[in-house]
Amino acid sequence: MSELRSVWLQELTWEDVADYLQEQDIILFPIGSTEQHGPAGPLGVDSYAAISVAEDTARKTQVLVAPPLWYGDSPHHLGFPGTISLTTETLVAVAKDVIRSLAKHGFKKIILLNGHKGTNLAALTTACRGLHEYELPDVFLALADPLFLAKGISHIKESVEHHAGELEISHVWYKYPSLIKAAKLPDTQVDVRTIMSDFVHNDLFGKGGDSIEVFWNSAEQRKFAPSGSFSDSSKASPEKGKIYHEYMVDNLSRFVEWLKKYDGIIGND
Amino acid sequence: MSELRSVWLQELTWEDVADYLQEQDIILFPIGSTEQHGPAGPLGVDSYAAISVAEDTARKTQVLVAPPLWYGDSPHHLGFPGTISLTTETLVAVAKDVIRSLAKHGFKKIILLNGHKGTNLAALTTACRGLHEYELPDVFLALADPLFLAKGISHIKESVEHHAGELEISHVWYKYPSLIKAAKLPDTQVDVRTIMSDFVHNDLFGKGGDSIEVFWNSAEQRKFAPSGSFSDSSKASPEKGKIYHEYMVDNLSRFVEWLKKYDGIIGND
Amino acid sequence: MSELRSVWLQELTWEDVADYLQEQDIILFPIGSTEQHGPAGPLGVDSYAAISVAEDTARKTQVLVAPPLWYGDSPHHLGFPGTISLTTETLVAVAKDVIRSLAKHGFKKIILLNGHKGTNLAALTTACRGLHEYELPDVFLALADPLFLAKGISHIKESVEHHAGELEISHVWYKYPSLIKAAKLPDTQVDVRTIMSDFVHNDLFGKGGDSIEVFWNSAEQRKFAPSGSFSDSSKASPEKGKIYHEYMVDNLSRFVEWLKKYDGIIGND
Amino acid sequence: MSELRSVWLQELTWEDVADYLQEQDIILFPIGSTEQHGPAGPLGVDSYAAISVAEDTARKTQVLVAPPLWYGDSPHHLGFPGTISLTTETLVAVAKDVIRSLAKHGFKKIILLNGHKGTNLAALTTACRGLHEYELPDVFLALADPLFLAKGISHIKESVEHHAGELEISHVWYKYPSLIKAAKLPDTQVDVRTIMSDFVHNDLFGKGGDSIEVFWNSAEQRKFAPSGSFSDSSKASPEKGKIYHEYMVDNLSRFVEWLKKYDGIIGND
Amino acid sequence: MSELRSVWLQELTWEDVADYLQEQDIILFPIGSTEQHGPAGPLGVDSYAAISVAEDTARKTQVLVAPPLWYGDSPHHLGFPGTISLTTETLVAVAKDVIRSLAKHGFKKIILLNGHKGTNLAALTTACRGLHEYELPDVFLALADPLFLAKGISHIKESVEHHAGELEISHVWYKYPSLIKAAKLPDTQVDVRTIMSDFVHNDLFGKGGDSIEVFWNSAEQRKFAPSGSFSDSSKASPEKGKIYHEYMVDNLSRFVEWLKKYDGIIGND
Amino acid sequence: MSELRSVWLQELTWEDVADYLQEQDIILFPIGSTEQHGPAGPLGVDSYAAISVAEDTARKTQVLVAPPLWYGDSPHHLGFPGTISLTTETLVAVAKDVIRSLAKHGFKKIILLNGHKGTNLAALTTACRGLHEYELPDVFLALADPLFLAKGISHIKESVEHHAGELEISHVWYKYPSLIKAAKLPDTQVDVRTIMSDFVHNDLFGKGGDSIEVFWNSAEQRKFAPSGSFSDSSKASPEKGKIYHEYMVDNLSRFVEWLKKYDGIIGND
Repeated sequence: MSELRSVWLQELTWEDVADYLQEQDIILFPIGSTEQHGPAGPLGVDSYAAISVAEDTARKTQVLVAPPLWYGDSPHHLGFPGTISLTTETLVAVAKDVIRSLAKHGFKKIILLNGHKGTNLAALTTACRGLHEYELPDVFLALADPLFLAKGISHIKESVEHHAGELEISHVWYKYPSLIKAAKLPDTQVDVRTIMSDFVHNDLFGKGGDSIEVFWNSAEQRKFAPSGSFSDSSKASPEKGKIYHEYMVDNLSRFVEWLKKYDGIIGND
Repeated sequence: MSELRSVWLQELTWEDVADYLQEQDIILFPIGSTEQHGPAGPLGVDSYAAISVAEDTARKTQVLVAPPLWYGDSPHHLGFPGTISLTTETLVAVAKDVIRSLAKHGFKKIILLNGHKGTNLAALTTACRGLHEYELPDVFLALADPLFLAKGISHIKESVEHHAGELEISHVWYKYPSLIKAAKLPDTQVDVRTIMSDFVHNDLFGKGGDSIEVFWNSAEQRKFAPSGSFSDSSKASPEKGKIYHEYMVDNLSRFVEWLKKYDGIIGND
Repeated sequence: MSELRSVWLQELTWEDVADYLQEQDIILFPIGSTEQHGPAGPLGVDSYAAISVAEDTARKTQVLVAPPLWYGDSPHHLGFPGTISLTTETLVAVAKDVIRSLAKHGFKKIILLNGHKGTNLAALTTACRGLHEYELPDVFLALADPLFLAKGISHIKESVEHHAGELEISHVWYKYPSLIKAAKLPDTQVDVRTIMSDFVHNDLFGKGGDSIEVFWNSAEQRKFAPSGSFSDSSKASPEKGKIYHEYMVDNLSRFVEWLKKYDGIIGND
Repeated sequence: MSELRSVWLQELTWEDVADYLQEQDIILFPIGSTEQHGPAGPLGVDSYAAISVAEDTARKTQVLVAPPLWYGDSPHHLGFPGTISLTTETLVAVAKDVIRSLAKHGFKKIILLNGHKGTNLAALTTACRGLHEYELPDVFLALADPLFLAKGISHIKESVEHHAGELEISHVWYKYPSLIKAAKLPDTQVDVRTIMSDFVHNDLFGKGGDSIEVFWNSAEQRKFAPSGSFSDSSKASPEKGKIYHEYMVDNLSRFVEWLKKYDGIIGND
Repeated sequence: MSELRSVWLQELTWEDVADYLQEQDIILFPIGSTEQHGPAGPLGVDSYAAISVAEDTARKTQVLVAPPLWYGDSPHHLGFPGTISLTTETLVAVAKDVIRSLAKHGFKKIILLNGHKGTNLAALTTACRGLHEYELPDVFLALADPLFLAKGISHIKESVEHHAGELEISHVWYKYPSLIKAAKLPDTQVDVRTIMSDFVHNDLFGKGGDSIEVFWNSAEQRKFAPSGSFSDSSKASPEKGKIYHEYMVDNLSRFVEWLKKYDGIIGND
Repeated sequence: MSELRSVWLQELTWEDVADYLQEQDIILFPIGSTEQHGPAGPLGVDSYAAISVAEDTARKTQVLVAPPLWYGDSPHHLGFPGTISLTTETLVAVAKDVIRSLAKHGFKKIILLNGHKGTNLAALTTACRGLHEYELPDVFLALADPLFLAKGISHIKESVEHHAGELEISHVWYKYPSLIKAAKLPDTQVDVRTIMSDFVHNDLFGKGGDSIEVFWNSAEQRKFAPSGSFSDSSKASPEKGKIYHEYMVDNLSRFVEWLKKYDGIIGND
């Protein structure tokens, strides 16, 4: 197959897409958020994460990327100006509609790439599980996310990573250097264990011991994390961002290449 | 007020937005689509229209723009690969959630900018009317669209404008020149009157005589407009696109400036 | 075909309807509203418009009419006693259920006749577009409305027509003379441009220049239009109502006759 | 209070309604159906029942009536041409929207009058119970229906009354004589006990012994009641219709008069 | 067929259920509530009623029982601590999902057993009617309830039976003796006629004269029935509970045996 | 506080609950599933897990337990007879209604105890997050699950634990010995990595390396795990079940005791 004019679906004509579908049926769908990321990170951090990993993976593996969704499930960040949150129900509906449209055209392997945004996972899981059981049994659906895609490289960080942490800030810094306010990177960390019990953990990349989930809302978050950041991101750097980014692109590319050749049970029933 | 670091909300930190809200409460929200635009236009035509007018208006008037929505209400285009359609209900839900989030932060004047995408209007109208009556009586909501914003300049086109027509192709050509396949611009037009009666009109910018709306679906469209384009866009040009674009930016900027000083009944009840 | 016992479906037995369907598959579905129409017009103005045009068109063309829907999408009129408003979502649901039922029996050409009630259009369009794409591809769905059906005759009015305007008042006056309080016809007009910017137009039948939609709610409307009427209807008359009514009946009848012979793409895919 | 110009809300102006609300806060809301009623009865039987009882009660007690809803919850009749059924969910939504609108204007005592249509009761009960608990605790909501309002007079019938039975046919015959095809009145009865067990009863007005509800659908009904009627209505007559009608009007009027003076706990909490 | 290891589905393995389905396709689904039942009855009265009748019927007839639903539609009891109410919409959804799952496995005859809980009936009826018409035409659905199943034995009670009445208290007393606080059984009765008009009846098992339904909410109920009980249950006894219970088990067993041999129209279309 | 008559809410009267609320505001809400657990485990395994941990924790800490929900989100198990699955949306609705009811009575600290059922987590998280942000900011909501509550003890198992694994089988065996068919315990394991890529892990309790979620449906599961079990549970034993159970009860009890004294930010805003 000759090189794609663009990996972004929205830049192509429908005839380009028809040509692509003659040879390949994989597409990436990046989902981010518009939510506060502390005093140093732009509101689009999660979207930039999803967009950049999707785009670089797509270039490397020559598959298409659907236009990004800039909005996620972020109610607990609504205490900070600029956060835009869909409800979980709306995010489910958007994800389902996008996947249905892609499936109708013959995209049979669809990879959702979520951008370091744990609270999106309930909606995206709901959408994929429901569609695959009840509507699209012959479509392979997968969901990738930095929190799980980059476990193996998380040791490069020097601090505890929670919201607006060292790795996700480094990531954006590497790919979109002008968007990080380096002078404002916080060097303190919120200790959620004092607020939500010992069963809640500070590090999203941690191995975790016993845990219980405790739910907090936007007003509470504004109180216990008044800067918006939960994390010490003073050790963030574009260099770390590069390592982290490339690790994820490598992982996801490996998965895409595996999927190109896949003819197992899933989606082929 | 000093110049904004960026007009795009997603590029700012929450503190930047908080600063902005000290002085201004207007924001633009661009809504496009990912739908086929014939053999020459990219799938993102409507999104590019919304994004470019929003961005240039925002720069000119120094107001903010929310991240764009790349998906619209495009079921009748689903017969062509690459089209991604939300249902009307989903689009209503997204628009409501975005507006609610913005309103919560104190954006009291929100302008939806739809990108030449008539079928989005039912959903966007539903969202705005419902919110303003039942939830957000104190928020001024407006909805702009090239079809109505550019009536006064539509005389520059030389052909009948329907889907993928001369003006919208020119628009993208001017702002994103690499995305138009000039060699593929169609020079024929679908005559919808022969298919849907004399009460249906060929020109979306036309003054219209008596009319009745007839609904068609994606399979039917694929039949009566097999190239995807309804319009002769062979007269499209970046030059026309520039005139059209600037006319819309001027109009919308005029509205924004009026709105900055507005203290009438709407949203102030 | 012998003359129908009644054009109203609800007056017939199911066997009458079965007989009709042997020869014809067209039906009209009138949708109105129950909303204030100023000090002179009854709350049912829009419903009477839909009912009378449907009934007279049906008699002229010998097609059936479904029972009318007396409720529409009128939230912005809820500030005046007697207005009954469905939400947009409910109106979509009702329209879909009625159309589905009719289609199940073999009505393959269904014409919604809305009664001069612009805000109904979002819901009715949503219902028709969604059904024709996803559920009823083989049913021809059309939507007529005085605002578009009577453009060619609107020159008979002598004043600017907005809510409760000269033409719709004349219409009811002609068909239901006892329901207009002639002594209370207002002779002033609300200038919406002063309230909602120059981009909003005063005349619903106007050709319109550049425009932007601004949304208002019931509390605001009560303030800027305290009588309920937006329009000077002092020039209304039964004579104008007759001309307007017959023009619409003629137009719609012409469409029905065209549709009787139609075997084009729409609904026949 | 002087006599009302009309008891029908839709025939009044909003000022008339405002005047009424100065003195009275009761309104009737008639709900019918459009569903087959055998070879002799028109599709609108249930609607005519609701409309006529509401109108005559309103005249007698000088209270208002909201415009009728012509559509009900009739899925099991969809096997016969002309039946139009809302889903239960849609009927709930319509009833809630109408009641909410009326309550907003100050109607504090709202009586739903259902027209001999048992399957509507689930939806109407759902709407009233939900609204009164969660949204409108200070509105008195009541639901009347011929099946319960006329128990005391049902002895005048000479046959077993089920769908399209002697009493409801008589009722329409009395009020709308031209709509009954007397020559087609069936003289046989469907014995539902042979089809659905001894725990299902033949007479809707019966006292009933032990019972279990069995659900049937439109295809099944078409089989076991091929004429559409379940009942022997050969003994129907306008005279019986008059007795039955007046009995219901008397009962409902008695309730309205009681309600005018009511200041007990319900709706006054 | 050999005796079942257990009549409760949840105690069996899927292989046990597969074996059962080789020979039988009937299942009972008990639905209760968690709502106050006065000072003497536990919150689970309705659930215990459903569970015990289902279990004993199942043992007697050797059919399966699905796990019970402990929550019902009880908004009007929310004024008393401990009541847990689903909305009607949620109860519809649960009932539909459970029935759909059972039908998928080949249970073709499903009997919902509601536990003396009239307000559940709207939801359960809505679920069954909708499913049988639109989704599961080949499944026989029935709905039983003590209020209708035990009419013929209700004469054993000595008092007027409304909420928390003599029979339902006796029932639980017989089956779960430790759960009734005998010393707290009320000996007074709420006269609903004084509160809601003569058209509302005191005895749920009564034959009823003319009636109109009046809706009350939880705050109102707390006022007119401050103990939670509407009924004099001082005559309740385990002995009466035994008679009542066995009567229902006998009736339901008779229905199950009839259904085992049923091959009529319902569910076989 | 004297010992509770019962820890189960449904066994108490409303007055008992009112008394409890004078002193304590914590309640546990157990949520399970009815889904196949291989040839040896009963369909109720997850429900029994939730019920037993909730009950024993409640007894130990003297707090109340709400009636259990026997149904969960189990679409991928619908290929095996007996599985009953709610949709994710329905489970969200049930959880929200139950929590709303409890909160209305003054339960301010509500702990959902899910029974080893990962797919329930999307719904339960959605319910809790949404309620705490938009409706119940002053209620502390927590979600516990064996998968996270018992990490620290998972080393006692000798095999890879996935669906129907050694630990959950041991758990039921310990608490409900008659419900495990010991002779049928499988001694083989499904290797999901061969089916869904190296990015999917075999052990639910594992520490996990990089991972990507792949969604499978019921038909696919029936193919790759024809016995229903994914796991070798031949090493299961009541003794292990006891250790595992007590570890969870201890952990949850520790959390409950901490919560009794909690007066931090969450739920106190």
